[in-house]
Amino acid sequence: MSSDRPSGLIGNKGIELLTLATPNGVKASIFLEELKETYGKDYIYQGINIMDNIQKEPWFTKLGPNGRIPVIVDHDKGGFAVQEGMAILSYLTRHYDPEKKFTFTDELDLSRAEQWISWQHGGLGPMQGQANHFYRFAAERIPYATQRYVGETERLYGILDAQLNDRDYLVGPGRGKYSIADIANFGWVNVGYMSGIKVKEQFPNVWSWWERISERPAVKKGVAIPYETPFGNATHLRRLEEEPEFRAKEQELEDHLKKAKEQYNYVYKSP
Amino acid sequence: MSSDRPSGLIGNKGIELLTLATPNGVKASIFLEELKETYGKDYIYQGINIMDNIQKEPWFTKLGPNGRIPVIVDHDKGGFAVQEGMAILSYLTRHYDPEKKFTFTDELDLSRAEQWISWQHGGLGPMQGQANHFYRFAAERIPYATQRYVGETERLYGILDAQLNDRDYLVGPGRGKYSIADIANFGWVNVGYMSGIKVKEQFPNVWSWWERISERPAVKKGVAIPYETPFGNATHLRRLEEEPEFRAKEQELEDHLKKAKEQYNYVYKSP
Repeated sequence: MSSDRPSGLIGNKGIELLTLATPNGVKASIFLEELKETYGKDYIYQGINIMDNIQKEPWFTKLGPNGRIPVIVDHDKGGFAVQEGMAILSYLTRHYDPEKKFTFTDELDLSRAEQWISWQHGGLGPMQGQANHFYRFAAERIPYATQRYVGETERLYGILDAQLNDRDYLVGPGRGKYSIADIANFGWVNVGYMSGIKVKEQFPNVWSWWERISERPAVKKGVAIPYETPFGNATHLRRLEEEPEFRAKEQELEDHLKKAKEQYNYVYKSP
Repeated sequence: MSSDRPSGLIGNKGIELLTLATPNGVKASIFLEELKETYGKDYIYQGINIMDNIQKEPWFTKLGPNGRIPVIVDHDKGGFAVQEGMAILSYLTRHYDPEKKFTFTDELDLSRAEQWISWQHGGLGPMQGQANHFYRFAAERIPYATQRYVGETERLYGILDAQLNDRDYLVGPGRGKYSIADIANFGWVNVGYMSGIKVKEQFPNVWSWWERISERPAVKKGVAIPYETPFGNATHLRRLEEEPEFRAKEQELEDHLKKAKEQYNYVYKSP
C-alpha cells in the first residue's frame, strides 16, 4: 500500500494517513481501524520513515507544518489535512463516528475525555518521550535528565493507575466505555518498558487496561501500520525471557537508572 | 479574593479558578477575562502557590488529579472540575461562549484551531518548559539538555512565525480571528526570553502577534491573576536595559547556550 519513499499523496478519496507505528502514530491508525471495523470506513496509508526525515520534506510540511507524523488528509474535504494526534482523534470523531461510539454525548463525560486526552498529549506523551530518550537512546548518559524524566513518567503512570483503580476504561459511567481517551493513552503505555517503566510490576491497573485494549482486533491491526514497533511491551517481556544478551543490556540500563535516582534522591510520589 | 494558603473551594456559584500566572495558568485567566468582558460572565479565583505544593494536597487533587494548575470548578454544574489548559479552553467555549466569538463554527477552522491548540499543548508548552528548566533553573548546568530543548523551542517558534507570516491571528479567514488558539499559545510566548528565545530579534511575526495580543484589556487583566509573572518579555527587555547586573547575568546564560550549541553542532532549522 505504500512505496518505500513516499513523495506525495497517493489517494483521491477518503482518508489518507501518513504515519509510522510510533506511540503517537498508532493513535491515528488504531482509531481508523476501529472506524473501519464499526462503520466500514475505509482508509489508505503511507509509511513515513522518520529516520530519513521524509516528514521534513516540503510536500509533507505543506500538509503537516510541524513536520511530525501522524498526519491525515481527508480527500473528501478537498484534501484538508490534520496534524497532531489529539486534533486527529477529534476530527475523525466529529466527522466519521456518527453514532459517537468512541466518544461521549454527555457533556461532562465529553469534558472528562478531553481532559484525559489533553493529559496524555501534554504530559504522558512528551515526558515519556524524554524518558525514552535519556534512558535508552541519548548518545551521552546524563543521570540528572534520566531520573528527571523517568521519574516524571512514573508519576504520570501512577495518576493513570489511580484512575483505573475501579474501572476498565478511563471515561464513562460505571466501569467506563472504551473511547478515544483510551486510544490516546494506549500508544505510550504500549512502550512503557522501552522508557524504563515496569508497567506490569509497578502499575497493575494500567497493565490490565493495556492487556484489555491490546486484545481488540482493531488495535492489533492498528499497531501494525505500517509495521509493528520492536519496542512494544509484549515483545520486550518475551525478549527478556528468551534472550540473555538482551536481558543483560536491559539490566545495565536499569542499574544506571537506579544509580541516577539515588544520586538525586529521587522518591516516587504519585498521585 | 484569595487567602494566602487555600485549603478548599470558596465559591458556590459560577466558575472558580485555581491558578497561578504561569504560562499554562494564564490560558484560563485570560479566557475567563475575555468571557467576562464580552458576556459579563463572572468568576472568582484562588492563587495557588505551587512552591508550597498546594496543588498536591488532597483537596486539590480531588479536583485536578494531575496535581497541576490551572483547574476550574463549575459550581453551576454540581462542582464539576476541569484540569488541563486545553480541556479548560474547550469546556469554557462550549458552555460559556454562546456566540462562538473565541472559536469557530466553520468545521475546518474549528479543526485548525484544535490543531494549533494541540500543537501548543503537546509541543510548545512541554518543550519550552524543559528549555526553561535547563537554560535557567536547573541546579546543574547540562549543555546537551540545554541545546536540545532551547533548540527544539526555537524550531517551534519558527513554525509559529511561518504561520503568522501573512496573518494577525493563528486561525480564521483572511488575516485570522483572535481565538482560543491564540490564547493557548500566548502564555508561553509571553515568557520567551526566560527560556532563552530572542523573540523580537529572531521571530518578528511572533513578536508582532505577541504585541497585538498583549494590548487587549482582558489579556492585561488575565496575566495579572493572581499576580503578574516577573519573567514576562516586557519586564525582561526593560530590565536588560535598566539593570546592568541583570544584563550581565543574562549574558552569561546566553554564552552558556552558545557554547552548548557549538559543542553539539546545533544548527537552527525551521520550519
